[in-house]
Formats: sequence, structure tokens, C-alpha cells
Amino acid sequence: MEREEKMVAINHRVGIKAPVSKVYEALSTIDGIANWWTKETSGESRSGGNVDVRFLSPDGKEKGSMNFEIIELKKNKQVHWRFKSGPEEWIETDVVFNLSQEDDYTIVLFSHKNWRELVEFTAHCSMKWATFLLSLKSLVETGKGKPSPNDVKIDNWN
Amino acid sequence: MEREEKMVAINHRVGIKAPVSKVYEALSTIDGIANWWTKETSGESRSGGNVDVRFLSPDGKEKGSMNFEIIELKKNKQVHWRFKSGPEEWIETDVVFNLSQEDDYTIVLFSHKNWRELVEFTAHCSMKWATFLLSLKSLVETGKGKPSPNDVKIDNWN
Repeated sequence: MEREEKMVAINHRVGIKAPVSKVYEALSTIDGIANWWTKETSGESRSGGNVDVRFLSPDGKEKGSMNFEIIELKKNKQVHWRFKSGPEEWIETDVVFNLSQEDDYTIVLFSHKNWRELVEFTAHCSMKWATFLLSLKSLVETGKGKPSPNDVKIDNWN
Repeated sequence: MEREEKMVAINHRVGIKAPVSKVYEALSTIDGIANWWTKETSGESRSGGNVDVRFLSPDGKEKGSMNFEIIELKKNKQVHWRFKSGPEEWIETDVVFNLSQEDDYTIVLFSHKNWRELVEFTAHCSMKWATFLLSLKSLVETGKGKPSPNDVKIDNWN
């Protein structure tokens, strides 16, 4: 189901020295997501399924949470999420990971799109996604990511 | 001189635990830029001045270079560059760093704007800018950044 695309989006590209199947596994399973984005990940990672993610401070207090629906899982090609709850600005936005192979790399084209407007929080999220994509790269290449609460802190918002 | 703004832009937000004057110094001087972006930085950092940046591989070969004009230096508030040569997609694009203080942080609102269109290279540059902004944060907070050629590599393009 196509929707009208809005212009504000975060777009990142990373290359991961690993087979595409390994990257897809890290993006398409609950265990995978828990090892690069946030340890507090639960739900059902299947087309039409819903996933809950929670972000805790080091002392265990909840700082935020989100729920997304899995719109599409195309094996070794694409993972597509749509946010259903969380920060107000995220609701009904889409995150898409497109995967391809080049040389020894799996290329991840990441897009968080359909933001209603560009706000300071968009710029914060752009930096956070960059650090989480480096966490994904590290997880797949070395076995160890930096999921929340061990995520890289970038500003006074987190 | 205002120009029509195009929609495609990279926007990042980082917070640096340091006085705004220290962050401004790292953005507005040749030595500063050389310590977080690329060691090969030369030119005149004054309004109307031009700056050359070169990117070398670890064995000293040039991988790329750019030249930008300093459009504006507003002390402790804003640094604005416009690219005059370099990758074709960068020519006549603008990079703006807006600085403000919040709590113990200097907030850097970074924008690389006026891209003619969104291309895969935009997504690559978005990731690279994120790592260079973390390099800037590290330089100001700890005295040590990761300028090229010691920059964080993110994909098969660099």
C-alpha cells in the first residue's frame, strides 16, 4: 500500500563486511535488534507483527519506549517498520533498511522517512541512528554491538 | 544574501560538554578544523576567506579534496561555509553550524543543505558527518579528535 511520501527524512549508508544474510538476521529478528538497538526488545518479528522497544537509563529507569509494526520482511533485501506509538513525531513514520552487496560489503541504505516536519528532534535522531548503525556494523563484524543502555551518548537529550 | 532553499539536507544535533567559545574555536580556525575533520586543512578562516581540505589514504595518496568559502563567522553563534569545488554534488551546497548553550552543553545544530537531489552519496555523507561531529565532540571534550586519515570508516566508499 503506497502512501504519499513526505520530504523530511533521515538517510544513512553503511557498509558491513559480512554476508547479507548476517545483516538481515540482525535486522529481522528480536535477538538481532536487541543486540544493536536496545536490549529491551520484545514482540513478534514477522510481516504484520508488532515489536516493542524500550530504552532504559543505566540505573534501569525507562526513558522512552516505542512500538512498531513490521510492514515488510523481504529476505536479504528489505526490512520495513512503521511506528505506531512512541515520541509524537515518530508516529506513522517509516524506517526502511534496503540491503545489497558490493565487493566484500553488505550495503545498508537506511531511511527514516515521512516525518511531518523538520525539527531539532529530527537532527538528534539522525545522530542517534548513525551511532546505532555503527553498532549494527560492529555487531555483525565483531559479534559485539552497543545497544541501549550501552549506546553512544551524543547530547543532553541522550 | 538569501538563496532559495532546496529541500534535501543532512541535519545533525550534538551536545558538547564545554563552553561555546571552545567549540567555536574548533569550527572557525584552520587548526581547529584540522583536528577534527582532516589534518590537511589550509587557507584563511575569515569571512570571505577560502579554505582547502584534502583527504589522504593512510599511505598518503589523495582520495579527494574540496574548497569552501567562509560565508559567515558569527562569534560563538554560527559558522557558515559554501563549497566551491569538490565532489560535483557538493558544489554550491552550504554547511552551517549553529551554536547555543543548554545546561552544561554547547549544542551544535549542523546542517549540510541545498543538495540538488537525494542520492546514495548523500546518505554516505550523512554517516560521515555524524562521525566527524563525534570527532569534534571528542576533540573539544578530551583534546583528541579523529580527523582524516584517522577517521572512522563506514562503508566501501570510505
